[in-house]
Amino acid sequence: MTTAAPPLNPPIRTLLGPGPSDIHPRVLQAIGKNTVGHLDPYYLQLMDHMQAMLRDLFRTTNRMTMAISATGSAGMEATVVNLIEPGDPMLVCVNGVFGTRMADVAGRAGAEVTTVERPWGEVFTTKDLKEALAKTKPKVVGIVMAETSTGAWQPLEEISELVHDAGALLLVDAVTSLGGVAVEVDKWNIDAIYSGSQKCLSCPPGLAPVSFNDRALEVIRDRKTKVQSWYLDVSMLADYWGTDRVYHHTAPINMSYALYEAVQIIHEEGLDAAFARHFQNHVALKAGLAALGIEYTAQDGHQLPMLNAVRIPAGVDDARLRGALLSRFGIEIGGGLGAFKGKVWRIGLMGYGSRSANVLLFLAALEQLLAEQGYNFDHGASIAAATDHYRGAVSGDS
Amino acid sequence: MTTAAPPLNPPIRTLLGPGPSDIHPRVLQAIGKNTVGHLDPYYLQLMDHMQAMLRDLFRTTNRMTMAISATGSAGMEATVVNLIEPGDPMLVCVNGVFGTRMADVAGRAGAEVTTVERPWGEVFTTKDLKEALAKTKPKVVGIVMAETSTGAWQPLEEISELVHDAGALLLVDAVTSLGGVAVEVDKWNIDAIYSGSQKCLSCPPGLAPVSFNDRALEVIRDRKTKVQSWYLDVSMLADYWGTDRVYHHTAPINMSYALYEAVQIIHEEGLDAAFARHFQNHVALKAGLAALGIEYTAQDGHQLPMLNAVRIPAGVDDARLRGALLSRFGIEIGGGLGAFKGKVWRIGLMGYGSRSANVLLFLAALEQLLAEQGYNFDHGASIAAATDHYRGAVSGDS
Repeated sequence: MTTAAPPLNPPIRTLLGPGPSDIHPRVLQAIGKNTVGHLDPYYLQLMDHMQAMLRDLFRTTNRMTMAISATGSAGMEATVVNLIEPGDPMLVCVNGVFGTRMADVAGRAGAEVTTVERPWGEVFTTKDLKEALAKTKPKVVGIVMAETSTGAWQPLEEISELVHDAGALLLVDAVTSLGGVAVEVDKWNIDAIYSGSQKCLSCPPGLAPVSFNDRALEVIRDRKTKVQSWYLDVSMLADYWGTDRVYHHTAPINMSYALYEAVQIIHEEGLDAAFARHFQNHVALKAGLAALGIEYTAQDGHQLPMLNAVRIPAGVDDARLRGALLSRFGIEIGGGLGAFKGKVWRIGLMGYGSRSANVLLFLAALEQLLAEQGYNFDHGASIAAATDHYRGAVSGDS
Repeated sequence: MTTAAPPLNPPIRTLLGPGPSDIHPRVLQAIGKNTVGHLDPYYLQLMDHMQAMLRDLFRTTNRMTMAISATGSAGMEATVVNLIEPGDPMLVCVNGVFGTRMADVAGRAGAEVTTVERPWGEVFTTKDLKEALAKTKPKVVGIVMAETSTGAWQPLEEISELVHDAGALLLVDAVTSLGGVAVEVDKWNIDAIYSGSQKCLSCPPGLAPVSFNDRALEVIRDRKTKVQSWYLDVSMLADYWGTDRVYHHTAPINMSYALYEAVQIIHEEGLDAAFARHFQNHVALKAGLAALGIEYTAQDGHQLPMLNAVRIPAGVDDARLRGALLSRFGIEIGGGLGAFKGKVWRIGLMGYGSRSANVLLFLAALEQLLAEQGYNFDHGASIAAATDHYRGAVSGDS
């Protein structure tokens, strides 16, 4: 042995960034339970229950609903590479980092990619897509429901209608939205969708729930070429998740335990109650930040409750403030990505992390650090604004 | 909530199949430790230590040594898609399921694939490759070091020399071998290699250690096309694992904790001691099975110590026996894959699972179940043969 690595001893954090989010203690217990084989009768039953619970989360009856054995970005890649064959036209809506990523993934899959763009922080309306749809006649339209780089919340219902009228499939990124706001796969007629375990599901990163409807499966069945990724080939995965149980790859057993427990916790609370909780804590945080003169980057009426992207006040040192939040209070928030680097904070209130205690703790810590940097504000005002909201909230504290 | 799933309560198993293997209790504790962010200073340090420990495991100084955020099969895909561009000739050695899989993965990556084949259970010599090398002038030659479907142990040193004389890169599957037998990346001049967390590393499935040498990185740097997989693009992963720490995907934090602990346990024991332990327990098992008239499928002198693939004795009902092993004794062994289905058992003695207690338990349970099926053998002989071996072993019990 040439390498001495220190014993594993991770610091305790309050994870209020863009993910991973705070993990429920029950989930951390679940992930450490004794491992069984990936073809063990117990594990096969667990997969069935997992599929049923994921269908409820996605609000779908799609048979092909499961978890990809990798993180959310692999979920993006899985949906794209199964639907796209070389030369297929694909339209990607880009208003942040994750739309940009989807266009890159699609290009690597051989798609003829066209993008429509909106400024970062804004969302798309049907009129943004009409021309490009008519001109490029895409096989697939990709769009991000919750753009984690900007905090923008994209409505999907009308866009879905437009996309289907144009004869295309709708592919949706729900990495950050699933479990925090309503994701209505069947009602909104979404053909393929992916998410990640580490956002509003409050499970460690490592799995990507996905769902494909029958229209998408038909397209996959009619492919003339093999899916470029063996690992992400949905037809082969279907033989393992389906009744045939054909060995494909060795499933990540303990990660599946964690996701199973995490989704069960959500269903115990109830999806609608979880959405209401995310919304309450978002409004309280927003009231607190407003009292400090801190503004959201996403356009009004389209701000995500679980991912609060805000402009860093002028004169405040980003790295110093986030560094102190982490080292002195154990609180992680996210910095800006891409064009927003150094200009934006991303405050996640996701899943188990979306709690009033976290909102108040964060505001108190933020006030102290802003004061230390000489930022001028009414001390205590953010806490007062947040608690006022909680007192007034019909559904009480959450 | 429409779906009621039962509480998570996995049965206790002794995992003596082809993986996942028995997990060390310390690893199950590690995986449930509190999650930190993927850009947390603590996690970035952990990645550095992980890289150093993985280099020791692979016996390499390769800078680009890391863990892919998915299972071993994604490690296969990662090495292939980074080295191969559409139209590149690749030669794949096929003598079992995993060579077949590699040829499939390579074809999906656009390689012009040629295969050389050996019967299942046999290994390749340089003379098997010479003609195909000269004829196809491959950019990459892929070969499986430990064929988990047959238990065959492929020597690599001479083949590596031949492959390099022919101007090709050598890509090695070390999923089942790493940590159980010597894998000498630098000494054997292996250009790209992948493994999995769930075999001799005794970590839950979900991560794929990989390593690329400078020659392989140069080939990747000189690519004319983008790597087809965004998720597995080594150049982008290098920016996250390297000093730049550029966000790529959200790393599977808790799985990394598990692998960190698992590799640390191996280094505490010492690699050579771990290899000796795997060998001792294999020899004891083999002596026990011989006393029952049970034979190995892999050719003499090339039988893997961690994966004992044996022929099911005539007249024994495979499904009934493996079912009873699992339900009555909690022991999992693997059935045969592909052409070996119903004809072969695969008994894994991997990592923490490679213990004398497991060998004796397995033989005792097997004897009982064989007796119940009316199989004719000298009762107690297998235990006697195994314990004789342990008594005689110079290094004592392990």
